[in-house]
Amino acid sequence: MSTSKADTTFDNELTKRREMVYAYLESQDYRQRLTPPDIRDAVYSYIRMGGKTLRPAVLLLSCGAVGGDEKRALPAAAAVEVYHTWTLVHDDIIDRDTKRRGAPTVHEEWARKALRLGYDPVDANHYGLSIAILAGDIQHSWAISLLSELYTGMHVAAPLVVRLIQRLQTYVIRNLVDGETLDIQFSQSPIDTLSEEAILRMLWGKTGVLYEYAAQAGAMIGLETEDTNHPFIEALTQFATKCGIAFQLQDDILGIIGDESVLGKPVGSDLREGKRTTIVHYAFQSANKDQKGTMLSVLGNRSATLKQIEEATAVLRSLGGIDHTRDLARKLIEQGKSHLEVLPPSLHKGLLLSWANYMVEREF
Amino acid sequence: MSTSKADTTFDNELTKRREMVYAYLESQDYRQRLTPPDIRDAVYSYIRMGGKTLRPAVLLLSCGAVGGDEKRALPAAAAVEVYHTWTLVHDDIIDRDTKRRGAPTVHEEWARKALRLGYDPVDANHYGLSIAILAGDIQHSWAISLLSELYTGMHVAAPLVVRLIQRLQTYVIRNLVDGETLDIQFSQSPIDTLSEEAILRMLWGKTGVLYEYAAQAGAMIGLETEDTNHPFIEALTQFATKCGIAFQLQDDILGIIGDESVLGKPVGSDLREGKRTTIVHYAFQSANKDQKGTMLSVLGNRSATLKQIEEATAVLRSLGGIDHTRDLARKLIEQGKSHLEVLPPSLHKGLLLSWANYMVEREF
Repeated sequence: MSTSKADTTFDNELTKRREMVYAYLESQDYRQRLTPPDIRDAVYSYIRMGGKTLRPAVLLLSCGAVGGDEKRALPAAAAVEVYHTWTLVHDDIIDRDTKRRGAPTVHEEWARKALRLGYDPVDANHYGLSIAILAGDIQHSWAISLLSELYTGMHVAAPLVVRLIQRLQTYVIRNLVDGETLDIQFSQSPIDTLSEEAILRMLWGKTGVLYEYAAQAGAMIGLETEDTNHPFIEALTQFATKCGIAFQLQDDILGIIGDESVLGKPVGSDLREGKRTTIVHYAFQSANKDQKGTMLSVLGNRSATLKQIEEATAVLRSLGGIDHTRDLARKLIEQGKSHLEVLPPSLHKGLLLSWANYMVEREF
Repeated sequence: MSTSKADTTFDNELTKRREMVYAYLESQDYRQRLTPPDIRDAVYSYIRMGGKTLRPAVLLLSCGAVGGDEKRALPAAAAVEVYHTWTLVHDDIIDRDTKRRGAPTVHEEWARKALRLGYDPVDANHYGLSIAILAGDIQHSWAISLLSELYTGMHVAAPLVVRLIQRLQTYVIRNLVDGETLDIQFSQSPIDTLSEEAILRMLWGKTGVLYEYAAQAGAMIGLETEDTNHPFIEALTQFATKCGIAFQLQDDILGIIGDESVLGKPVGSDLREGKRTTIVHYAFQSANKDQKGTMLSVLGNRSATLKQIEEATAVLRSLGGIDHTRDLARKLIEQGKSHLEVLPPSLHKGLLLSWANYMVEREF
């Protein structure tokens, strides 16, 4: 547990922003307008559980670090949280995950509800799938409508709001979906046909690009400019890109050696799903025939036993896959932080540096 | 085939607008920016086949009917077409449809591709599902980015563009998903627990609300106003709402008595999926025990034979289900057209009246 003064300050400041974002989401009459009840409950399912709110945090802090008023950026912070949420709901279907944050995933939960209503098992699974697709679609729309509230609620200039919506719906989504699709395709490709560079590029799409967008949007709102070449905006964009990739590397580490009760999802699911992480890739380079066999016996094998998972994890660890990935993540964080040197000192800048450390020090 | 002068003019004018919309979609560098190739091809799959373009048509004609320049509204017309397309891609998953417009649906096509690449059947189906979810998600984003081009490309006022995006992503999507979810839930409900009013409300959500939005958006762009209470805008909104419900009623009729080779999807799929149409609902009211049995043997029975489907269709027809629904559709079209009386005479107004007739006279 971190107990230093800087850490305590950061924890408090992060919590404060998380509460602001969720209060904003809950204050809306959006919930009452959603029908029928299954859709309303599915849309709020992950929102209700709450997330780490690291994307909204970097958006708000970037706004503050360039001298802007964080409160005016609040709808955008809520938007990136909800945007992230719809990608989770759809990715959970794609990754066939049944648990998230310790609870059933949306498609799993509504399949169970349908079973209890007497649907046959095939129809019940299909009902769960259908509700999860539609709930994600609604969240996607909700995120965009939250961005539109920058203008209708906070009087941010309409042209800037249009630009922010346009960037999210072109550049960001394309790279997000590219990353997600490559993640699926890589899991069916022989490991030695992939390069670490290709894996890092995929991770950037899956995770980095939305962090990048969050920081950029916060800074643009703070400076009230559409000019993405402004040196402060460029610095924050680069900072968040690198920290975002590092976040995903830490996610991959926790997916293999994390604590199941803390993570809220089964350890080994990334291995069973055949995810091509830098951990697996690095270990594979120096593995002997037996070690390769141990890894390949679990990779993409959805019925791998806990014992097999443990053996493969020991191999990944002993061949340095974990350490190598941790080094990669830390280097990215240091590179990211160096971009912030152009910014004047401020409370917000200090919090951004703590935020960067948190991205790779977190245990869940 | 229609050959009168008015019909020929309408056909030509509709074709002209279809070509404008598709030329706009194809002219973009959007395609080149989509990666990987499976996503690019899946996103363009239905776009390439082309649709009836009835939503873009009513948007452009509404713009012209209030005195606006249709060309400035083109990005919005393209947006409603692409928005409609993502709902098709996701609905095809939900409805378990394997064919659309004579070709495999997106999830079906990419499942087959994966099979050919050597994926096992379960993984191949899951790959098809994943690509279809992500392709629909991209199209959803694309539609919003097209709306943003009203400002960045056509210099429509940014505040109006933000309002148009906001309305699509709150009011429209909520009602669309409400309609789609009720459609799924109704198919699991006993027919005599449903009212015709509830079915019509569901159809409005599934189909009417996007037609309503298209006409309203076209008129708002044409008049360059955010005031939805303007009498012309109100008239066109009401007109399109009613025509949109009528369109869906005609769709339900064609789903039962249409020509499979013209429709491009298997006849009987609505019955096998258990869709609660006004046709089934009306026929059920006056059916005797045997007739109810014939209907219930196919409703929601995905392995119903062609013979069973034909018998059920004969019952639906003889009990007046088809005629009743056709009457409902025609009444809605007449009510819709009466709203246009407040508009000054114009070529565009005449085309809107022909468009309304086409909504229920079409054979596919």
